[in-house]
Amino acid sequence: VTPLEHLVAALDVGGTTTRGVIARAAGPGPPLVSTRAPTVTGEADVLVDVLGGTVSALASAAGVEIGELGAVGIGIPGIVDPVSGRVRHAVNLGVGDAPLYLADRLGASFGIPVVVDNDANLAALGAAAVLDHSDDLAYLSIGTGVAVGLVLDGRIRRGWRGAAGEIGHLPVDPDGPVCRCGQRGCLEAVASGAALARQWPADDGLSPATALFAAAAAGSAPAIAVRDRFAGHVAQAVAVIGLAVDPALVVLGGGVGEVGAPLLAAVRAALRARAGGSPLLADLDLAGRLALAPDGVAPGLVGAVELARSRVPAAATER
Amino acid sequence: VTPLEHLVAALDVGGTTTRGVIARAAGPGPPLVSTRAPTVTGEADVLVDVLGGTVSALASAAGVEIGELGAVGIGIPGIVDPVSGRVRHAVNLGVGDAPLYLADRLGASFGIPVVVDNDANLAALGAAAVLDHSDDLAYLSIGTGVAVGLVLDGRIRRGWRGAAGEIGHLPVDPDGPVCRCGQRGCLEAVASGAALARQWPADDGLSPATALFAAAAAGSAPAIAVRDRFAGHVAQAVAVIGLAVDPALVVLGGGVGEVGAPLLAAVRAALRARAGGSPLLADLDLAGRLALAPDGVAPGLVGAVELARSRVPAAATER
Repeated sequence: VTPLEHLVAALDVGGTTTRGVIARAAGPGPPLVSTRAPTVTGEADVLVDVLGGTVSALASAAGVEIGELGAVGIGIPGIVDPVSGRVRHAVNLGVGDAPLYLADRLGASFGIPVVVDNDANLAALGAAAVLDHSDDLAYLSIGTGVAVGLVLDGRIRRGWRGAAGEIGHLPVDPDGPVCRCGQRGCLEAVASGAALARQWPADDGLSPATALFAAAAAGSAPAIAVRDRFAGHVAQAVAVIGLAVDPALVVLGGGVGEVGAPLLAAVRAALRARAGGSPLLADLDLAGRLALAPDGVAPGLVGAVELARSRVPAAATER
Repeated sequence: VTPLEHLVAALDVGGTTTRGVIARAAGPGPPLVSTRAPTVTGEADVLVDVLGGTVSALASAAGVEIGELGAVGIGIPGIVDPVSGRVRHAVNLGVGDAPLYLADRLGASFGIPVVVDNDANLAALGAAAVLDHSDDLAYLSIGTGVAVGLVLDGRIRRGWRGAAGEIGHLPVDPDGPVCRCGQRGCLEAVASGAALARQWPADDGLSPATALFAAAAAGSAPAIAVRDRFAGHVAQAVAVIGLAVDPALVVLGGGVGEVGAPLLAAVRAALRARAGGSPLLADLDLAGRLALAPDGVAPGLVGAVELARSRVPAAATER
């Protein structure tokens, strides 16, 4: 990397894990450096400091100063306004009513453009970029939380208050646990990785989702019961988005999405069971429109890199 | 009306009532003639004949032959493809898997352009045209069925299979009644006018919804219980659409929507109760974004007139 080669940094801040990369500001090619670390939650100031440190460490690893980066793009959960860089209601990160002006604070400290967007929106953009012929899709992120990013007819659907896709906070089970948002039985409280970890704690270094699906595949009756109930709740999330906006494709992603084929099979089975008695649902074929996030690619990071690139002046990338 | 003045016909076919008008093909002004009659359901061929007869009667009342009309626009429930004029899964009209080529059949019989679209889509377009500054809204039709029409950023969102807004067939109550679609406890099975009529049959000429809200206002405890449960289910429909696409406005319409202010108040109360413990939901203020369809206007007919006008050659309307 020469000083004249423009680079960008990108972060995908999840409820559990933060990933980051340094990538070229133009052209194809893999990231130059990447990192992955637990997300530090609970206090907005600490979150800002840690994210700043992550960008700093990435820049060092790439052999550049932060000030030499063209821009930083950050995906983060919650209600995010990409214009003001304001984050609210990232309930799994400890950000609530009080706004966190993440872009301004990191931008002031770095002296370069910093731009933030909702992580599911960026993952949807990233998935649309990676999957061919997919300018109409929903990215269903099942991680610590549950959220959807929507690319409809080629454009991100943000909604009037930046809440489009926040179906994680739709109550679906009156007997379910209280959600971090304050309601009871939200999709996020029953269909997230955190919900699954409560029902199937892993003690052998595997993720709870991986452990659960392995135990179910091995024939454990309690694991099968937990898996099928979980898959039923994920199927409800797919049905919500399928009937509300009817996207061409629903992409299963997030940390639980990494379970891969067994998750896809379980959710498809739940969707087909629902459609069994309903010609309308059978015809909509939501099961057939469900797909896994592409293997070996982190759509959220792809989207965050694209976001950062969009803030680098075109002249700087024409080399 | 002179023979040179171009007219269009428009129908809004509901699960219970069909309304129709003859209007001028261009310019403002009220319909020239209008009609309202029970919808004949259960047999697609009979439905086609009756709708043809309705257009015929409208034309006669306006003093013209059908062949003199510029076009006919029809809104109808179900999965509707406006390009092919195909209707499927209008479960309250007896149209299922087998497609009804409504536009072709009426067009062949009339010899003029006939165009069909989903009734909730047309109502959303109509509401957007009537309400100022509203190019981003959901029209929640609560009639015999429950369906949503979406105008997002000024454009109808139809979805990949024409199913966008079909949240009436989202199961929300595992203990609810079986829905006509074949699933159990769908929003349509608990939050529709038909669901309300089962719980509060009216015997005095009032609509069940009007009778229920009047009895509740008069202090009847059972009426209050039925009303509040119903309003809670409608609030769930608003939450589904609010969290999925976050429209600027949600317009309450359909036959039950005619209850007006008491319905709006009950659904708002249910939404505010949900938001009570949730800063995120409180911030989204779905209650504040809920509105009644404009008084004295049938948005579905406004949309159907616009649809018909769009098929009249521009030269014919320039007078």
